[in-house]
Amino acid sequence: MKIRILITIGDINGIGPEIVLKTLGRKDITSKYDITVITPVTVFEYYYRLLHVKPVKGKFRIISIGEDKVKIQPGKITKESGYISGLAIQTAAELCKRKKYDVIVTAPISKKALNLGGFNYSGHTEMLADLCNAKDSVMIMVSTKFKIGFATTHPPIKDVPKIITKELLTNKIEICYKSLKNDFGIKNPSIGVLSLNPHGGENGQIGREEIDIIISVIKKISKKYKNLNIKGPFPSDAYFANKNYQKFDMTYAMYHDQGLIPFKMLAGMKGVNFTAGLPIIRTSPDHGTAYDIAGKGLASEESLIEAIKWGEKIFKSRSV
Amino acid sequence: MKIRILITIGDINGIGPEIVLKTLGRKDITSKYDITVITPVTVFEYYYRLLHVKPVKGKFRIISIGEDKVKIQPGKITKESGYISGLAIQTAAELCKRKKYDVIVTAPISKKALNLGGFNYSGHTEMLADLCNAKDSVMIMVSTKFKIGFATTHPPIKDVPKIITKELLTNKIEICYKSLKNDFGIKNPSIGVLSLNPHGGENGQIGREEIDIIISVIKKISKKYKNLNIKGPFPSDAYFANKNYQKFDMTYAMYHDQGLIPFKMLAGMKGVNFTAGLPIIRTSPDHGTAYDIAGKGLASEESLIEAIKWGEKIFKSRSV
Repeated sequence: MKIRILITIGDINGIGPEIVLKTLGRKDITSKYDITVITPVTVFEYYYRLLHVKPVKGKFRIISIGEDKVKIQPGKITKESGYISGLAIQTAAELCKRKKYDVIVTAPISKKALNLGGFNYSGHTEMLADLCNAKDSVMIMVSTKFKIGFATTHPPIKDVPKIITKELLTNKIEICYKSLKNDFGIKNPSIGVLSLNPHGGENGQIGREEIDIIISVIKKISKKYKNLNIKGPFPSDAYFANKNYQKFDMTYAMYHDQGLIPFKMLAGMKGVNFTAGLPIIRTSPDHGTAYDIAGKGLASEESLIEAIKWGEKIFKSRSV
Repeated sequence: MKIRILITIGDINGIGPEIVLKTLGRKDITSKYDITVITPVTVFEYYYRLLHVKPVKGKFRIISIGEDKVKIQPGKITKESGYISGLAIQTAAELCKRKKYDVIVTAPISKKALNLGGFNYSGHTEMLADLCNAKDSVMIMVSTKFKIGFATTHPPIKDVPKIITKELLTNKIEICYKSLKNDFGIKNPSIGVLSLNPHGGENGQIGREEIDIIISVIKKISKKYKNLNIKGPFPSDAYFANKNYQKFDMTYAMYHDQGLIPFKMLAGMKGVNFTAGLPIIRTSPDHGTAYDIAGKGLASEESLIEAIKWGEKIFKSRSV
């Protein structure tokens, strides 16, 4: 049986609709997967006329949401686009919880639009965790080069140190450990943890979070899970310069740019975002709405297709 | 006339002495430059015996500092090593201010040791700025791939947003602009400025520093210097993924790891740290004391030699 993929359209003023249409135009993909898209039908029609991207006929289904006449304004952050973004995610989560689909693949949204649209979440990761009643979840970036889990997703830099507590780190690293085992089929996983501060904090000289929080969490988790090889905290610049990420099944970063800068440099168009810790499987491309090129036909579907493929891998690994 | 290079020994328990000795063993370097090293003589003798690295005879000078018997403990942070570190820098700054030497090249120090040794600075950059009575200075990493200037050097992450003000950014970016012109000979320079927060702050949704501080500074500086092409703030992950650093003479980062992760990934062993904004010229390797491999003969002199070569380039550019 083909794996049932449910794609949410993302922000209708971003590149989401374009990359979804381009994916549906790929016979190798539509023949391999059983694909359903959650979108207002008018959005599909609009971008289809604008970009002349032809989906493969009869090879996918649509679940239509939203009003009959949706206002589409490529490149704009609007309340309407945010409302549609949120509605698609809500619908998808509901259907997946009821096992109607195997994997959700989400096209990119704007957090600002999402909030304007009435959904008070800081992103997909947090919204899906809430909809699934998950105690916690972890943003993980996956690629063939390396995997990277995050302590924090998209807070402002000034809030990062406040958010990182022993409890949060412990919960999230445990989710990463379980995900490596169950979602990626690694029996004896290894995790390399990055430091929050430059130079690993230099023995408390540059911030105390390493000493007060990170080192003790690593020790505790290391004791608890005998088949987990967890090391760190590593100064992040030297860690990537020395290619230490190749030595671990997962790198664990403290904040967005610390992990995403090297990840995007190394993974290129092949990066995928996966939310670990949920009962459902959700993946997405690692790029944003790219408003600046929305509606111009310039967007690549590569990362969305990678997201579908990783969703399949994780589904199969969980089904073993 | 040969350029007069003054090398400070750095932390005597780190890899500083080893990489200095290895550099002095390179005939291509000792024949090209007029090199003087500030170090306790005993330190040189100790590592010479330990590592069997042979400097080229009669091709360099030593300015001896410290007590006759200095206690050397490879890998250890000590008060004594910090005191020697600081003393070498102090002596070097004094001699360069008096034009006795053209370039200072500093081997790596430990900030903790430096402080224990009685020098209350957060690093070379700040210490030299103070010794030179410079109003401000900027840490710039240089390589053949790209250059990167920093708004902050080594504070803990939690302090970074507090430090970044309009005044600080304005002063430091002006120093970068002048350095590109005078130190690197670029007539019409360009600077790409990174955002502090993930996704460039997403229009204030993820932190307000971009809107309240960074954007207005860029606008002001852009107006003031007609021959400067300054753009940003760019979300840092996409900036490096899209190789935007190739489009600017300098990338301007908000904090240490944001700039050093990509810099070290791209520059490899060829990265050099340069302090812009001082009357004297100071360069250094882009790595730290590497206590873990101190005294083992494993350290590479590559980056120190690059620091000498960049010092020469900058000296020549300033002399035009």
